[in-house]
Amino acid sequence: MSNFFDLIHSSPDCKARRGVLHTDHGDIPTPIFMPVGTQASVKALQQRELKELDAKIILGNTYHLYLRPGNDTMKFFGGLHQFMNWDRPILTDSGGYQVFSLQDLRKISDKGVEFRSHIDGSKHFFSPESVVMTQRILGSDIMMVLDECVPYPSDEKYTAKSMELSLKWAKESRDHFNNTNPLWGHRQFQFGIGQGGMYSNLRKEYAERMVDIGFDGYAIGGLSVGEPAELMYELSDISTEILPKDKPRYLMGVGTPENILESIERGIDMFDCVLPTRNARNGQLFTTRGKINIRNSKYKLSKEVIDENIDCYASQNFTLGYLRHLFIANEILALQLATQHNIAFYLWLVKTAREKIEKNQFLEWKKNFLDFYLSEND
Amino acid sequence: MSNFFDLIHSSPDCKARRGVLHTDHGDIPTPIFMPVGTQASVKALQQRELKELDAKIILGNTYHLYLRPGNDTMKFFGGLHQFMNWDRPILTDSGGYQVFSLQDLRKISDKGVEFRSHIDGSKHFFSPESVVMTQRILGSDIMMVLDECVPYPSDEKYTAKSMELSLKWAKESRDHFNNTNPLWGHRQFQFGIGQGGMYSNLRKEYAERMVDIGFDGYAIGGLSVGEPAELMYELSDISTEILPKDKPRYLMGVGTPENILESIERGIDMFDCVLPTRNARNGQLFTTRGKINIRNSKYKLSKEVIDENIDCYASQNFTLGYLRHLFIANEILALQLATQHNIAFYLWLVKTAREKIEKNQFLEWKKNFLDFYLSEND
Repeated sequence: MSNFFDLIHSSPDCKARRGVLHTDHGDIPTPIFMPVGTQASVKALQQRELKELDAKIILGNTYHLYLRPGNDTMKFFGGLHQFMNWDRPILTDSGGYQVFSLQDLRKISDKGVEFRSHIDGSKHFFSPESVVMTQRILGSDIMMVLDECVPYPSDEKYTAKSMELSLKWAKESRDHFNNTNPLWGHRQFQFGIGQGGMYSNLRKEYAERMVDIGFDGYAIGGLSVGEPAELMYELSDISTEILPKDKPRYLMGVGTPENILESIERGIDMFDCVLPTRNARNGQLFTTRGKINIRNSKYKLSKEVIDENIDCYASQNFTLGYLRHLFIANEILALQLATQHNIAFYLWLVKTAREKIEKNQFLEWKKNFLDFYLSEND
Repeated sequence: MSNFFDLIHSSPDCKARRGVLHTDHGDIPTPIFMPVGTQASVKALQQRELKELDAKIILGNTYHLYLRPGNDTMKFFGGLHQFMNWDRPILTDSGGYQVFSLQDLRKISDKGVEFRSHIDGSKHFFSPESVVMTQRILGSDIMMVLDECVPYPSDEKYTAKSMELSLKWAKESRDHFNNTNPLWGHRQFQFGIGQGGMYSNLRKEYAERMVDIGFDGYAIGGLSVGEPAELMYELSDISTEILPKDKPRYLMGVGTPENILESIERGIDMFDCVLPTRNARNGQLFTTRGKINIRNSKYKLSKEVIDENIDCYASQNFTLGYLRHLFIANEILALQLATQHNIAFYLWLVKTAREKIEKNQFLEWKKNFLDFYLSEND
């Protein structure tokens, strides 16, 4: 059986790296951006369109899919790939982030977390083991461990205490993963998640102790939660110093195009974020000319296509003026075209980053691109 | 220049007919169903998907497009085909139906109708001539005349008076059409609209006097407004007795699959309706097995595809169980897939009708199809 992760090339002048993840649903070149398909659908995109845009892997969410359609239904359909008719890789988040966002609706113990459904108020319990089993049923190629997501800001004492609990859960998750088998005939991999709030000493200790447990890959969680971008970069940088070079690193929930490029520079391989899809639905487009708000009246009479530099149906075939009309008139097609374009842009961004890393031109390209991109925003 | 309409074949045992409309944006086989793209978009469908489903012609709406994006913008973009990037035929409704639906917001005179925008309350005026000119700007292949749509029910006196006004407008519309030229280098055709409420004598007189004015085709308006289906069929039947055989007949705003087949039998060539698109968004699917409400819990564990008899991406590649999940979870993809399927079904219906007419099997097929289709509804 091949390695899960191969490191192909490392930049000479920064920590940016070019790698490949091997899964039974196909290879994933890194650095990669993973479109978010929370409820078994990347909002406003068809599965064939995700392929057309050449999405290499998408996300699903354990919390949402556990509640709806539920584990029994998911099992009946033979897992998430079958259910949604998607034969490329899937990563599932553990649902920890969603459960801990429920605030008053959840109760935490060292065994796990009890919570009430945001849909119907029904009571449920997630343990490190149950979250592994739900992800066995989902059949995701990459599953995440359950962890406690500390609020931002949190004091050091609480953050340290939370770290102990999450590390205990991480160990239990890994043991349960090692003692159980995939259900659907393809391999599954498991990532640990490093937290540690905004404390560099805790981030460091957390990363070291995760590596001691030993996972197929390592995620950095609890960033991009409101802290300054520079602090996020610094804490990622500290983490990737410790994480082993031969394992993939995943910065969860990040972020803007500039966040992604800065983090690639600091040695991150994988990203997911709702920004390109959610902001598309609000009329914000990420383009090679910068961010634009398509509702702006200055686009009313624009015959320019959405983005001539992005090779996608939406970007090439419709004018800014037409897309603006669709938003103003509340047409569903507005959401479809804007989402297509934004995902195409994000995938273009990481693809270009990969090419530039291979040619040892990443830093230079990053600077030139961001200089232009950030100067042109609406 | 070729004929606009060629009648290819007439059924021996009913009035069903097989024809072709020739436009500069392509030929349209009849009987045909025209998906409704009110605001320059068929809701939830991309233009390339309309082509994939082999939609031969779509509708736009003069009232909506006049208000938004407005005639100046439409002119700037070079007409509706250019604006929405659709190179197949377009028919535009005159907007009369929408204006007369505004109730308290409009004031009618023999010159036309003053109304307030449903969007911002601004005051506007439509005359027979201005509606022709707006459709010149839109560049629709087929334009409709402005007419007064009488409410249902209306008494005979009011209906007769309304007929006189609408016939006056029809004549003015035709004169203005004949005295003006297309703006965008392709031919435009103009249809009259026969009203007459539920009065067969008025329907008859109206049709005769429309034919005297002389249009490229004839629409039957003001039906499917709440009257019994049998009455609609009877009034259509009366109209097609009078309308010339060498011109296309268009039954506006109709209807269900059974309405369409019954009307084809009575000599109608063209149909439009929001049912397949609007009902798709409410979770109602028209399938070869009958109408289904996909939210029904009986589909939760269905691994059947949406409709194995319909050749479309949505129909063939996703299960009823997955589509139900998308609706329950409020995913946009639900609307996209359901709309794709419903339009595919409607286009399959008229395509099959055309094939059966050619083989002199229409009546037999219609009976067998409807016996099954109507028995299987949820």
